[in-house]
Amino acid sequence: MYIADHTWPELGDYVAEESVAVVPLGSTEQHGPHLPLATDHLIAEALAREAAERTGFLCTPTINVGVSPHHRQFHGTMWVDPPEFRDYVESFTRNLTYHGIDRLVYVNAHGGNVQHLREVGRRLHEDETAYAVEWMWDESIPDLIDDLSEFNGPHGGPKETAMIQHIAPELVREDRLADARDGGVKDMSAIRDDNFVHGARTFYDARENSDNGVFGDQTDATAEKGEELFEAATEQLVKLLEWLDAREFAELLPAGHVDPQPGSRR
Amino acid sequence: MYIADHTWPELGDYVAEESVAVVPLGSTEQHGPHLPLATDHLIAEALAREAAERTGFLCTPTINVGVSPHHRQFHGTMWVDPPEFRDYVESFTRNLTYHGIDRLVYVNAHGGNVQHLREVGRRLHEDETAYAVEWMWDESIPDLIDDLSEFNGPHGGPKETAMIQHIAPELVREDRLADARDGGVKDMSAIRDDNFVHGARTFYDARENSDNGVFGDQTDATAEKGEELFEAATEQLVKLLEWLDAREFAELLPAGHVDPQPGSRR
Amino acid sequence: MYIADHTWPELGDYVAEESVAVVPLGSTEQHGPHLPLATDHLIAEALAREAAERTGFLCTPTINVGVSPHHRQFHGTMWVDPPEFRDYVESFTRNLTYHGIDRLVYVNAHGGNVQHLREVGRRLHEDETAYAVEWMWDESIPDLIDDLSEFNGPHGGPKETAMIQHIAPELVREDRLADARDGGVKDMSAIRDDNFVHGARTFYDARENSDNGVFGDQTDATAEKGEELFEAATEQLVKLLEWLDAREFAELLPAGHVDPQPGSRR
Amino acid sequence: MYIADHTWPELGDYVAEESVAVVPLGSTEQHGPHLPLATDHLIAEALAREAAERTGFLCTPTINVGVSPHHRQFHGTMWVDPPEFRDYVESFTRNLTYHGIDRLVYVNAHGGNVQHLREVGRRLHEDETAYAVEWMWDESIPDLIDDLSEFNGPHGGPKETAMIQHIAPELVREDRLADARDGGVKDMSAIRDDNFVHGARTFYDARENSDNGVFGDQTDATAEKGEELFEAATEQLVKLLEWLDAREFAELLPAGHVDPQPGSRR
Amino acid sequence: MYIADHTWPELGDYVAEESVAVVPLGSTEQHGPHLPLATDHLIAEALAREAAERTGFLCTPTINVGVSPHHRQFHGTMWVDPPEFRDYVESFTRNLTYHGIDRLVYVNAHGGNVQHLREVGRRLHEDETAYAVEWMWDESIPDLIDDLSEFNGPHGGPKETAMIQHIAPELVREDRLADARDGGVKDMSAIRDDNFVHGARTFYDARENSDNGVFGDQTDATAEKGEELFEAATEQLVKLLEWLDAREFAELLPAGHVDPQPGSRR
Amino acid sequence: MYIADHTWPELGDYVAEESVAVVPLGSTEQHGPHLPLATDHLIAEALAREAAERTGFLCTPTINVGVSPHHRQFHGTMWVDPPEFRDYVESFTRNLTYHGIDRLVYVNAHGGNVQHLREVGRRLHEDETAYAVEWMWDESIPDLIDDLSEFNGPHGGPKETAMIQHIAPELVREDRLADARDGGVKDMSAIRDDNFVHGARTFYDARENSDNGVFGDQTDATAEKGEELFEAATEQLVKLLEWLDAREFAELLPAGHVDPQPGSRR
Repeated sequence: MYIADHTWPELGDYVAEESVAVVPLGSTEQHGPHLPLATDHLIAEALAREAAERTGFLCTPTINVGVSPHHRQFHGTMWVDPPEFRDYVESFTRNLTYHGIDRLVYVNAHGGNVQHLREVGRRLHEDETAYAVEWMWDESIPDLIDDLSEFNGPHGGPKETAMIQHIAPELVREDRLADARDGGVKDMSAIRDDNFVHGARTFYDARENSDNGVFGDQTDATAEKGEELFEAATEQLVKLLEWLDAREFAELLPAGHVDPQPGSRR
Repeated sequence: MYIADHTWPELGDYVAEESVAVVPLGSTEQHGPHLPLATDHLIAEALAREAAERTGFLCTPTINVGVSPHHRQFHGTMWVDPPEFRDYVESFTRNLTYHGIDRLVYVNAHGGNVQHLREVGRRLHEDETAYAVEWMWDESIPDLIDDLSEFNGPHGGPKETAMIQHIAPELVREDRLADARDGGVKDMSAIRDDNFVHGARTFYDARENSDNGVFGDQTDATAEKGEELFEAATEQLVKLLEWLDAREFAELLPAGHVDPQPGSRR
Repeated sequence: MYIADHTWPELGDYVAEESVAVVPLGSTEQHGPHLPLATDHLIAEALAREAAERTGFLCTPTINVGVSPHHRQFHGTMWVDPPEFRDYVESFTRNLTYHGIDRLVYVNAHGGNVQHLREVGRRLHEDETAYAVEWMWDESIPDLIDDLSEFNGPHGGPKETAMIQHIAPELVREDRLADARDGGVKDMSAIRDDNFVHGARTFYDARENSDNGVFGDQTDATAEKGEELFEAATEQLVKLLEWLDAREFAELLPAGHVDPQPGSRR
Repeated sequence: MYIADHTWPELGDYVAEESVAVVPLGSTEQHGPHLPLATDHLIAEALAREAAERTGFLCTPTINVGVSPHHRQFHGTMWVDPPEFRDYVESFTRNLTYHGIDRLVYVNAHGGNVQHLREVGRRLHEDETAYAVEWMWDESIPDLIDDLSEFNGPHGGPKETAMIQHIAPELVREDRLADARDGGVKDMSAIRDDNFVHGARTFYDARENSDNGVFGDQTDATAEKGEELFEAATEQLVKLLEWLDAREFAELLPAGHVDPQPGSRR
Repeated sequence: MYIADHTWPELGDYVAEESVAVVPLGSTEQHGPHLPLATDHLIAEALAREAAERTGFLCTPTINVGVSPHHRQFHGTMWVDPPEFRDYVESFTRNLTYHGIDRLVYVNAHGGNVQHLREVGRRLHEDETAYAVEWMWDESIPDLIDDLSEFNGPHGGPKETAMIQHIAPELVREDRLADARDGGVKDMSAIRDDNFVHGARTFYDARENSDNGVFGDQTDATAEKGEELFEAATEQLVKLLEWLDAREFAELLPAGHVDPQPGSRR
Repeated sequence: MYIADHTWPELGDYVAEESVAVVPLGSTEQHGPHLPLATDHLIAEALAREAAERTGFLCTPTINVGVSPHHRQFHGTMWVDPPEFRDYVESFTRNLTYHGIDRLVYVNAHGGNVQHLREVGRRLHEDETAYAVEWMWDESIPDLIDDLSEFNGPHGGPKETAMIQHIAPELVREDRLADARDGGVKDMSAIRDDNFVHGARTFYDARENSDNGVFGDQTDATAEKGEELFEAATEQLVKLLEWLDAREFAELLPAGHVDPQPGSRR
């Protein structure tokens, strides 16, 4: 159920009976010459809405801009700085718990958001307000991703290309797929040595590694592969929501301090 | 032009030549038994996208959740607290200026956001980073709004109902229009005395005034009226964008300190 | 009762029995060539002290500097930025509740403070620490203000001039009243079109509209009119304090969440 | 010159030619059964205004509430927490520099403010915005204070009593001077051992040491002594202002880094 | 060179000529029944000091407590929350640049610090204050680590055990190595399925996975292996410092915005 | 007991039974040409560890860098700005209370930290989380310090020199003691007049008073005197810890509000 399509009286049963919510988050950032800036938030939104539809759990509107300063040198990349992003998501989430929501999944499609969503989740977990977990679609189906393409890549590569070919084909510039590959980093293994200098990750921005912001070879991506990824990831997300729903809230809270001395004051 | 539909290389000309951006902001909050929680962000997004389409100026993705704690008692209302909202919008905007954007319109459809967007605009104005103005669609066409309906209302009333009837008719519960009126406050003049006790505005939450969160009588709202409002407001927004674009940046910056003594050290 | 004139043992009965406090707030900012920078805080203080005297409720010292960056281009205008102002007032108020105060009126005479005081009031209301309302003197007697003068004005105009003529006549430069009018904006209706460009409020600073910072025609202001305003506003404030005092604290707290399902877990 | 009594055009010469300002700060806190809560801010204000009058330098309105949590257990003590106090004073001061003020004296009469004003002064000094110093009246005339009374005391004692007897005699409860002494700590040397446990200052609140909040014996305080203190302190403040005014601004800025190697890159 | 052992005049040449600094950071947190809470900060300090000794670059004192809330359920684990940790490290680093340091290595031995040090590094990089990189010793010698032991583990396992056997053998409880293994998680592959529920990392605290806080089998760790690790990691760090030192500062700064249009205004 | 040397299971009894902790804090800052930058943190650590050893109370790792901007002009001085320092120490302390610690001594050897540690202690005291006191070693043995040397001094003087001669004699440049005296301020009484201009402390940085950063004459300092100081201060600290341990926690909490009226609602 997409919350924003409903009127408040229609939500009464949900507020009375349910406690799960899905929050899609992405980014608005360069994805090479072949994919739109919307790529990440489109993927997150599509997956979150579909899983909410199938399960009946509540899905919120999408947070479209995330933590993407590492792509800023490419035209149009938008971003919010990490402290403001975390605090916005925290306030957004805390306030949602006013309606009885106490377990949430951040359906995320942007790697730059991961650590910040985990940090927000930890804040809520430590003070026992809610149990929120970050879920990155491609982490849920690693084998399928591995099999997808010869030269995968974390950004603008075949997995994201295929997903957009499936979700929003009109936004893929099919005639630029070869350019995307040729102007970027086709083979990730080629850059690891440059990026890690004696063990330190020395780059801060994508532009340092890729002239066009692309990593991977997307020329073999297809809408059919995208559909397969979408179905598989949706299935994982549905199961995660059901798993969450089946837990007692107490199970999701922090374990207490190790008992230093059975029978003692602690 | 909707930024998120484009690839970064396609934005090169804009970055090189243009300096205007449109940012839609709304809320996700109760709008009575007849309108979806999405009402405000749908309106803001539709107007911003349309004006951007007509003028070619850049429109960003929508900020869907705003400052709505005063509606929180009604199921599903989402909100971000004011400090976090302001800081998020400020960071969002400052970072956008990295691409040469120096004048922005916050296309807003939620009264609760107004003062916060003005405050962010002032921060950017005072340090001369950018010139950002808040624009509320109904403020741009006050006479047309006045003529629209016998019993107008600021929230869930005929103007918002008509707009959604035009923009997203499938989301209007037409069979609940009379309920909306009867369960809420049909005539705003009836409540002013209750809300202002000897000059002080004593209420903090919508629920104190309206049992169903509605103000106004929307039974005479129609999609045709909505279209008229939409066209008129879009026209105003287009003119505002053109006005902004025609200014020299220096004209938009703060006037300096009054000269205390011509020829003095200041 | 003005708290600062008393010794702590003298306040014992109040702390034991009462829960109301009055906090005067103003600004120190330009008010044209005829009125002192103190105008707003003098008015707030005079009204707050008088109402406290008549009712016996406690009045705190005055916060003399407020949120006035929009007047900064005129010599001597002082201001505190909004986040720091809000946090100062919040801390000031929270700590006062340590003595059993749980309802407060911010007696305000500066428009630029209004939204910030409302925001602080909301913070205290939401966490149920106290019930604080903002009260702007001229909002309490709108009809009288309307009748006062042909050309009223929000800043430096006849209402403020008359008040200072009554409260602190020695501070009014009577010989500059005509200058004040002639160098400023006599008729507010003349500037609305300039200030609102297609619905957007495009100005950030008073100087953009008025060369001398004045709005309205104060040449017909008199101390007699000022006394009338003062008496009428004081009377409203007294009634507001009595109204507050007569409430149960629970009445002043937020209404709870709408019950989604009678008998359910919420 | 008291800034708030003037109109903005009258301040033109000052803005054009001068750079010194005096800011009075005190507290609103218990001062025993004989002195009003206003004690500290009355003293600060009287000294600041007098010195400004004599020298022509600009005096701002008073900040009446300071950092007094250590007196909170006594009825009516008001306070602002340290972070909010510092940030308010910092914003207040930074914004005043917009008018060309670059050197300030915080005329302070409350010990609890000292370290916070020094910290704010350091912030302004380090970024070279302004040179602000904290000045505590009794620190300027230590010998005179020492000679004043047999049993001096830092709070509610003879020095403050004499000052208020001079400045605002109607606010001194003369009939409670002996009570003040008898219910408090007459001889400071008697409590040092209690307060410092093996070198650690173990108390946080005045109440831990004094039942009525008083330290010292004020039974020999007189208005004449108060006048003498007032005159002597004012004289010191006048000299300080003249000293500040006579400095080049560069003299007041931080010394640079020690040159590590003459002729090197630094 | 360890900065704290020197007097300020002895540092003159360094300040005049050099720009590199090494900052060791660790944690004070449980490391099982066999290793001291100091484990991580001992390792970081030993490596940083050794590399500084060999190269002559400056090493600062160690930050001994880091971001370890995920170990808090085990006795004695200390931690600082992420926002305060980041801001402390940022201030620590910014102020160090006052002496001409503009490139730094955070020598880190605690996984929980990584993302926070990267975030601080990014802040300094984006505003071009300094170039700081996080370096985690075991990331610099992955192959050696892999070969070390049959059952490696990220926390309390053989690599950390061997390091402490080499650096501070008196702090290893050799008689508890088997207990460490048996009471914890010997084989990491066994827990991945529990920790990732349909792609979401569902645990927040180490205790959820390991009863004694240990991961890996350390029974085959030896001081000799530790020495080998120490030498190899030190060598990597030395090379990293030399690499940093050999860079022009401009090389280390962010690349600029992609030029949208050669010859345009940007 | 030094916490970081222990494994977590070894701390079980302490967590179960004890509630005292000792936290050493110093600085890393110039101490003249004869003493290392480490001076303050070495002293704090040595005293804290020794007292913990003698009593069995828990000692944490040392916070090596403190609030020292006033020494920054001398090579190598490190510092953290006050807000970040306070917040780091507060988080460090609050989290330690998770293990049942509710009373702490900040063993401090740097004057610049005092007020900030007191402020943190107050925060914890006011919300009743813990009772933390700042303890400065030389404040605990004032008579002994006074007798130590003819020309004492607060920084780099005989007391600190003697302490380092005892604790870490290899770090004292014995051949620079006369230089230290001759290049600095031998007699503190000579500078008071310069530092206090008509009662205001006008200096912000040590360099304004002392060319080499030294105050006092350390030529008569010896390791034997250092040992005497060390023993005496340790003895005081041990007694303080025992005193703290012997208190009921309720004794250490704030006294409540003075009862305004026995039998009343408060």
